[in-house]
Amino acid sequence: MADLPRALAAARGDEPVDLLLRNARLVNVMSGEIHSADIAVAAGLVVGWDEPGWDGPTWNGPGGPRKTNRVIDLDGRFVAPGFIDAHVHIESSMVPPAEFARAVVPRGVTTVITDPHEIGNVLGLQGIRFMLREAARAPLDIWVNAPSCVPATALETSGARLEAADLAELLAEPRVLGLAEVMNFPGVVGGDPGVLAKLDAFRRRHLDGHCPGLTGRALHAYATAGIRNDHEATTVVEARAKLRAGLTVFLREATNARNLRALLPVISAVTERHLCLCTDDRQPADLLEEGSIDHLIRIAIGEGIEPVTAFRLGTLNTAEHYGLHDRGAVAPGRRADLVVFSDLSAPRAEIVFRGGVEVARDGKLLHDPPRPPAAALPRTVHLDPDRLDFAIPATSDRIRVIGAIPDQLLTQSLEMDAAVKDGLAVADPHRDLLKMAVVERHHGTGRTGLGFVRGIGLREGAIASTVAHDHHNLVVIGADDSSMHTAARAVAEADGGLAVARGGEVLALLPLPLAGLMSDRPIEEVRDRMLALLAAAHGLGASLRDPFMAMSFLALEVIPSLKLTDVGLVDVERFAVVPLFV
Amino acid sequence: MADLPRALAAARGDEPVDLLLRNARLVNVMSGEIHSADIAVAAGLVVGWDEPGWDGPTWNGPGGPRKTNRVIDLDGRFVAPGFIDAHVHIESSMVPPAEFARAVVPRGVTTVITDPHEIGNVLGLQGIRFMLREAARAPLDIWVNAPSCVPATALETSGARLEAADLAELLAEPRVLGLAEVMNFPGVVGGDPGVLAKLDAFRRRHLDGHCPGLTGRALHAYATAGIRNDHEATTVVEARAKLRAGLTVFLREATNARNLRALLPVISAVTERHLCLCTDDRQPADLLEEGSIDHLIRIAIGEGIEPVTAFRLGTLNTAEHYGLHDRGAVAPGRRADLVVFSDLSAPRAEIVFRGGVEVARDGKLLHDPPRPPAAALPRTVHLDPDRLDFAIPATSDRIRVIGAIPDQLLTQSLEMDAAVKDGLAVADPHRDLLKMAVVERHHGTGRTGLGFVRGIGLREGAIASTVAHDHHNLVVIGADDSSMHTAARAVAEADGGLAVARGGEVLALLPLPLAGLMSDRPIEEVRDRMLALLAAAHGLGASLRDPFMAMSFLALEVIPSLKLTDVGLVDVERFAVVPLFV
Repeated sequence: MADLPRALAAARGDEPVDLLLRNARLVNVMSGEIHSADIAVAAGLVVGWDEPGWDGPTWNGPGGPRKTNRVIDLDGRFVAPGFIDAHVHIESSMVPPAEFARAVVPRGVTTVITDPHEIGNVLGLQGIRFMLREAARAPLDIWVNAPSCVPATALETSGARLEAADLAELLAEPRVLGLAEVMNFPGVVGGDPGVLAKLDAFRRRHLDGHCPGLTGRALHAYATAGIRNDHEATTVVEARAKLRAGLTVFLREATNARNLRALLPVISAVTERHLCLCTDDRQPADLLEEGSIDHLIRIAIGEGIEPVTAFRLGTLNTAEHYGLHDRGAVAPGRRADLVVFSDLSAPRAEIVFRGGVEVARDGKLLHDPPRPPAAALPRTVHLDPDRLDFAIPATSDRIRVIGAIPDQLLTQSLEMDAAVKDGLAVADPHRDLLKMAVVERHHGTGRTGLGFVRGIGLREGAIASTVAHDHHNLVVIGADDSSMHTAARAVAEADGGLAVARGGEVLALLPLPLAGLMSDRPIEEVRDRMLALLAAAHGLGASLRDPFMAMSFLALEVIPSLKLTDVGLVDVERFAVVPLFV
Repeated sequence: MADLPRALAAARGDEPVDLLLRNARLVNVMSGEIHSADIAVAAGLVVGWDEPGWDGPTWNGPGGPRKTNRVIDLDGRFVAPGFIDAHVHIESSMVPPAEFARAVVPRGVTTVITDPHEIGNVLGLQGIRFMLREAARAPLDIWVNAPSCVPATALETSGARLEAADLAELLAEPRVLGLAEVMNFPGVVGGDPGVLAKLDAFRRRHLDGHCPGLTGRALHAYATAGIRNDHEATTVVEARAKLRAGLTVFLREATNARNLRALLPVISAVTERHLCLCTDDRQPADLLEEGSIDHLIRIAIGEGIEPVTAFRLGTLNTAEHYGLHDRGAVAPGRRADLVVFSDLSAPRAEIVFRGGVEVARDGKLLHDPPRPPAAALPRTVHLDPDRLDFAIPATSDRIRVIGAIPDQLLTQSLEMDAAVKDGLAVADPHRDLLKMAVVERHHGTGRTGLGFVRGIGLREGAIASTVAHDHHNLVVIGADDSSMHTAARAVAEADGGLAVARGGEVLALLPLPLAGLMSDRPIEEVRDRMLALLAAAHGLGASLRDPFMAMSFLALEVIPSLKLTDVGLVDVERFAVVPLFV
């Protein structure tokens, strides 16, 4: 470490420190205390602290006041370690890394572990390398896990296919930690050779998990493969079973999967060290209004979790889980990633330091990083809007229907009577029965999966999006085919994005020209357009808080029970395509 | 992992498991519970467990009894993870790794992290490579940290000198984890370039610490260097300060440094995860009669520590500290390193499995590993017994005297009146004032440091040894020069070892032909000879339980306060040679 001699001299008191945070109350996640301290920072590191009244000897002389180049008197404000997000898909913020950082760093998040599998599914290694490049420009420590499931399964068509040998290329990247959430749990448990090859390639690093609802021998088999964590637990019983089986459990509070409150009872003195906080997928409005890991910490404290424990969940535990021993605590030798705040009952970052440098104050970055232009990536929506066809010839009068559940990624597998008109199965908004289509958009095949969904609530019109986990094909849900065509065309012509339409009219549009996933605009503008989309959708009767987020997971065939991809309706428990008509 | 498909098939229940431990009580260090389980082992791994009454579905079919190749009905006995010693110098057992394993594996120790710095100080990389080779033959997982302090300081003469470039060669060895205890804490705190070069070489691995008594800015500077742990705390106050500063604290119970009981109060729900157990240095008699980590766990439980917590200190915590994520818990996917025992209030291993293979039962290894012959290493005692000279011309009537403290590595720095006879300062056993000599034995210089020690208690005769931390020069303590010569000659002629003499007579001798540190004989024989040595020494009046162990640390100039090396008397606080006469 080039600067260590200087850091040591500052630690000893022989040389001035770069920064002294005087009269701080240090949230010591190692000892569980909150104690007074004058925190010394040099060469990007915390190099120690003096406690009030301390006048012990230094190494080679008497103690006494520090020499320092800058002093901030915190007047009793708290200093916590920078927050760490254990698992996040940055693409879900609909902006690239630098712009994501602009949203989360002022909230105290200084490190995230990200899985760029959204862009990986669209653009393969080219997309992942774009994220690595962009990550380096962001004022945020972004560690990348290599997407393990591109495509998620054979029951969808993604833009790229990443096998073990492709992923192994990423091992040379200094920012790559390990293998990202292995969602293909049937492949793991069943011993699929392609999946095991990926595990083997990253075995000496980290293997991240994703195994919703897995229990008994299947859960044990999944853990036997060497996978170390899971972020899909939704109940205390499930979280306890996973902890018992040796997994670290990430407590998630995503935009569309708000599991944190339900899981808080799993926190105990014994379990706490193997619990971490993650956001997984959070949309612009939630990031800007609620926040990121800071929001989760506030929830935990608000629900009665002892504050230092809440901070450990969002700092030390995650750092230790990932072996990031240079951070996660305010302690000598660790990065001076620091969050200053005033209210221990609801911490909100007031000043944020990254590697000892003040990067944000009062909710704003001091220097905005550059956004990549739309042309930074190639066009990715390859389909002909004139050839879209959403007609479904009726072959029986009973249909399988996807049942959307508010704030859950899980769906129900329902059966309902079909609405048949002129020999075609159609939407029936009066019964909340809407048509859904998933159109392959990467390779220009136009292959379209068709089905029905309940729980979205549109009385008329349609919504469309190229954000559809994990293949990110074009998804459309509507009350009539004409509205579905209009919404789909709007998105296709924008080279990706989200749209709301009614009949021939586009009511709202958010273009996402970066891989059909991310905008080239400021996150506030994305949020505003997103709010306009939601207002339009709600105006058409949409009942969920965010029907787009819900829709984006209705095409994800690795989370039970019934999903739709371009290949067709997928029964996730059986892991097979099933006919629409019963 | 070659066998993973088979392990997964066994985990699912599709293929027979290699071993089923039926009716076990599983000590679950992850969840803090002790629960009933039929534990399944395949391909060297725990692959899961069924709980009584469990009849849930397997992955692809109904549950039900396991197919298995071997069943052991444990009839309610407990199963804990194999114990892990966080820090041990195997050489202190006076036998090489395979023989050390024969002592500790039957007690449930399945993994140790060792620092071969004793042999490193005698034979450099040649000695370390000998230990790595021997480690591979032992039925024990031995991880090696590269000795950071060879020699410990410039105030001694060791057999070898290992700089950063030499140590970096060890990075390629698969069994090398990191850099071993950086005892040169003044070098770290002061920013010595040679020390910092070693830290930098191993920064991306692990940096082990050793900083007895360090506080305030010096402790913070030490931690600033990136060092992650310490095993030298002797008080709760010291341990707490180190935890607070971000260090993991190893609780030690060595033969000559019994710190565990004093430190137990530091264990709390918050601190526990950053506490590990280590033995550091344990002699054959203690290993064979008390035990190793099992002994420490029994002490902790006996003193009231909740049993699962005690096991965590000796298993999971250490595994996690060193990133050994394949062990440390009885959990699917982890090594089937398992300890079976009956009494939770005083656990004693009855069966030990290593990687799923039964390796010990009822306190004995099933297959003894081969011992290396004495000729496996070159001769290492290079001195001419006829040229030894222990005479001390008196230059004043006040002398500095090393004050030995029972069961501590620390010494006092005393001043006493000299006993002068014929112009020479001599021993005065009536005042427990004995002469001590340290003779350089590696390079044939015969350089001799001379001084006095109090607290050993010999009324007559002398003891001599080539085990003297860390330089392992020839150390002699005696009531008269003639006895000292006899003892020293006996050890030199054995090419290393321990001896007790009175006048011209050798009363007891333990040859240690392997580097002057280890025997080529079975550990029981070493223990018996050691007991004979102790009996002889006690017969001469020695008051300490083990005057040889005490003597071996009186020459270690990195632990305060006053020590003697071949260079002379060392004031450890001032880190300087000081005159014998005041």
